[in-house]
Amino acid sequence: MTYIDETHDPKAQSWLEDANGHSDFPLQNLPLGVFSPEGDDKPRGGIAIGDHILDLGGLESHLSGDAALAAKAAGGSSLNALFALGAGPRRALRRAVFALLTDSTKENLIRPLLFSATPSTLYLPAHVGDYTDFYTGINHAENVGKLFRPDNPLLPNYKYVPIGYHGRASSIRVSGTNFPRPKGQIKTPDASEPAFGPCHRLDYELEMGIWVSHGNDLGDTIPIASAKQHIAGLCLLNDWSARDIQAWEYQPLGPFLAKNFISTVSPWVITTEALAPYQVAQPARPEDDPKPLAYLSDAEDQKTGAYNVIMEVHILTEKMRAAGEEPCRLSKGNMSAMYWTAAQLVAHHASGGCNLQPGDLLGTGTLSGADSSSYGSLLELSNGGKAPITLPNGETRTFLEDNDELILSAYAERENRVRIGFGSCRGKVQPAR
Amino acid sequence: MTYIDETHDPKAQSWLEDANGHSDFPLQNLPLGVFSPEGDDKPRGGIAIGDHILDLGGLESHLSGDAALAAKAAGGSSLNALFALGAGPRRALRRAVFALLTDSTKENLIRPLLFSATPSTLYLPAHVGDYTDFYTGINHAENVGKLFRPDNPLLPNYKYVPIGYHGRASSIRVSGTNFPRPKGQIKTPDASEPAFGPCHRLDYELEMGIWVSHGNDLGDTIPIASAKQHIAGLCLLNDWSARDIQAWEYQPLGPFLAKNFISTVSPWVITTEALAPYQVAQPARPEDDPKPLAYLSDAEDQKTGAYNVIMEVHILTEKMRAAGEEPCRLSKGNMSAMYWTAAQLVAHHASGGCNLQPGDLLGTGTLSGADSSSYGSLLELSNGGKAPITLPNGETRTFLEDNDELILSAYAERENRVRIGFGSCRGKVQPAR
Repeated sequence: MTYIDETHDPKAQSWLEDANGHSDFPLQNLPLGVFSPEGDDKPRGGIAIGDHILDLGGLESHLSGDAALAAKAAGGSSLNALFALGAGPRRALRRAVFALLTDSTKENLIRPLLFSATPSTLYLPAHVGDYTDFYTGINHAENVGKLFRPDNPLLPNYKYVPIGYHGRASSIRVSGTNFPRPKGQIKTPDASEPAFGPCHRLDYELEMGIWVSHGNDLGDTIPIASAKQHIAGLCLLNDWSARDIQAWEYQPLGPFLAKNFISTVSPWVITTEALAPYQVAQPARPEDDPKPLAYLSDAEDQKTGAYNVIMEVHILTEKMRAAGEEPCRLSKGNMSAMYWTAAQLVAHHASGGCNLQPGDLLGTGTLSGADSSSYGSLLELSNGGKAPITLPNGETRTFLEDNDELILSAYAERENRVRIGFGSCRGKVQPAR
Repeated sequence: MTYIDETHDPKAQSWLEDANGHSDFPLQNLPLGVFSPEGDDKPRGGIAIGDHILDLGGLESHLSGDAALAAKAAGGSSLNALFALGAGPRRALRRAVFALLTDSTKENLIRPLLFSATPSTLYLPAHVGDYTDFYTGINHAENVGKLFRPDNPLLPNYKYVPIGYHGRASSIRVSGTNFPRPKGQIKTPDASEPAFGPCHRLDYELEMGIWVSHGNDLGDTIPIASAKQHIAGLCLLNDWSARDIQAWEYQPLGPFLAKNFISTVSPWVITTEALAPYQVAQPARPEDDPKPLAYLSDAEDQKTGAYNVIMEVHILTEKMRAAGEEPCRLSKGNMSAMYWTAAQLVAHHASGGCNLQPGDLLGTGTLSGADSSSYGSLLELSNGGKAPITLPNGETRTFLEDNDELILSAYAERENRVRIGFGSCRGKVQPAR
C-alpha cells in the first residue's frame, strides 16, 4: 500500500532554514547514512537535512517507543541493525524526526545534534554482506547485447528471468573514493594471445542500488506481495567496468575481475518512505512480451512498483578541472528503464531459498533510456568505442581517461510534491599502479 | 618454501592415545575450527585431535609470544582474527600445541581443555565476507562444456584465465546442514515457456575450499610468489547445483539461483602447515598449452603448488538408511585435477586490485579426474542425465532424490608420512517446501 502521511506535506516548514530550501535533502526526504562530524572520527548514524546532518547517536534520549528503538539501532557505525528492524521502527523514526524539526519549541534540544555536512566524513551506510547486480535495464541489455552478440542481443530468458549475478562486496566504497585504473588480461581482436596490462576500455555504469532491510531465513522465500517491505531504500551505484577485461574473461561464468576492482555508492539511503509519493506504475510491457510468472506477479506492485526518479551522469576531466569549468552532463535518464521492479528482484532472489540479510545491496543494472541522451555507460554512448563523444570543451572520449571524475546524481519529483535528491556518487580514475 | 619441521614427524607420539591412531586428525594434522562443547553453547576456536577438540579459548594462558597471540585471536566465535594474523602466529600456535600434546608433563594442564568431539557442535570456521568459485577442474570444464556447448566445450580463454565468479556468502553452511530442494524457473526442452517449480536435476559438486588468511588493500595486488602466504588452509566444499535452473538462467551473466540456495563446507581448516609434506609439483601441462602469463608464473609454485589429496564422494539414500546400509562411494579422485594452483587463484583474484579479506572463501570448482570413477558430479556421472548410474542396492540415480545424503571426504598421504584427513562434508536433500 502507498504510504503517505504528514511527513510528505509539501507545505511543511522547519525551524532549520536550509531544511526548507531546494537542496537534495529537504524536510520531506530525511535520508539515512553514517557520518562522523569534523574533529570526531567515530562513525554513527545520521539523517541528512538541508546542509546539516542530524546525529542519530544522540537522539535516542529524546524519543520513545519504536522511534527510540530505531535511533538506538542507528547509533553505531553501520545501519544494519536499523535495517534489521524492518519498516515499522524506520517509519516511526521518520515521523519523530519530522515532528522535532517542524516544532520550533524543540529547536534548542535538537540544534546541538546538528552538524555541518560539508566538513563531515561520510561512510558506507551499511556493512554489505552480499552484493547482487541485476540486469533490469532492457535498453542497456539490448545495446550491450548487440555489441557482444550481434546475432543474439537479448537472450530468450531475459523477459522471464530477472537476470542477475553475485558481485563483490568487499570492494564497495562510498562516494569520493578514487581508485587506480585496473590491470588485467586483455586480448585485443588482432592478437593471437592475451597480455596483462592496464585496462584501455574503462567505463562507468549508472545504476540504482537497493538496500535490503530485514531478510529471510535460508530455505524460506519472500512472496512478491510483501517483497517491498524488505527494502530499506535506494542509493546511486556506479558499477565501474573494465570492458576489455570483461570481453575476454566473461564466458562462461560471467563478469569477474572486470567489475570487482571497485563499485561506488552514494552515502545516503533514500528510504522507501521518502520515495512513496514518487511511486508510479510499472511501465506497460509490449503486447508480445510474456506475462511475469505468478511468483513475480502482484497487482499492487504493477500499479506502484516503479519510481519517477531522474538520473544523471556528469564528467569532470583534468582539462576541465584545470580550466575551472563545471562538470558537463553525459546523460539524463529515468529509473523507469527497469524491466523488473525492485520488489520483483527481491522476490526472485529469495525464490529458490537464498537468504537475504539486512544490508545486502542489490544493483538494478545499468539504466539506459531508449535514446542516446539517456545511455548509462560510455560503451553505449560511444557505440562500443567506435564513435567517440565530444565534450563541450572539445575533448573526446570513447572510454575513461586517467583523472576523469564521474558524478552520478538523481532526484525524485512529482507535481504538487517537493523534489527530493539522492546526493551524489563520485569517483575519480587514477593512473594504473 | 616448503615448511617441514618436528610437527610433521611421523614417529611423534602424544600422551593422548587417540591422537596417535588412524583418525582423520592425528597429531600431525591439528586443523582449526570453531566448536562448542556439549552443554555450553558459546562457540570458540578449537583444534581437532583424534576424537577430541582442544579449546583454544582456554589455551592462551599456557602459551607465550606469537602462539599466545594466535590462541587469543582464535578464542572468539570465528577464526577471522586468527587468519588476519597471517602464517607466523598460526605456525607458532601449531608448534606450541604439538609441544604440549607430546610432552607428558603437560597432560594435567591440557586435559581440562580437551572435549569429546562427538557431542560437540561445529560451526562455520570463519565469517565468509566474500565467496568466489573458480572453475579449475579442466576435466569437469570439458565434460560440462560438452553438455552445455557441444560445439565449443572449452572456451578460448580457459587456458589463460583462471575462470571464476562471485558466489553467495550468506548461504554457506557447515557440514550437517540439511536443506529443502530448491524451486526455480525451469524450461524443459519441449516447453515453449518456463514454469516455476521444484528442481528436477539437483546435483552436488565435489570441490576444495581455500580459506584466505590475511588479504590486500583495495587497489593493491598479491604477487604470485607470495600468494601462498595468503592461504590459511583448505576444506571440503559441496557446491550444490540445480542444473535445470542453471541451464535456463545462466546466460549471459553466469549461475545465480542455481547455486545460491546452499553451499556446504567441512568444519575443519586443514592448514597449509599441515599440508606441507603433501605438496607436489603442478601436473605438467600438455606441450601445446600456453604458458601462464608472468603474473601467474612462479617456479617454486610450479614445483610445490599442488597437493596430493585424495577426494571421495559417498551417497546414503533413504532406502539404504532404512536397510541399515553404509553409504556407498560414487567417486574417488585427486586434487591434482586443478589446472591452476591455489596460489595462482589468489594472485589472479587480486591482480586487478580487488581486495581479499581474512575469511574469504575460494572454491576450486568441481574436481573431476580423467575417467568416470573420479567424476565429481552426477551431471558428469550420468552424462547429463542420459545414463543413470546404478547403486549397489539396485537403486538408480541421474540426479539427487529427496532424502539423499551426500558425504564428501578427503585425505592427504605420502610415503613415510602420516596420513591426515579432512573430516567430512555432509548434507541431506529434504523435500521442496
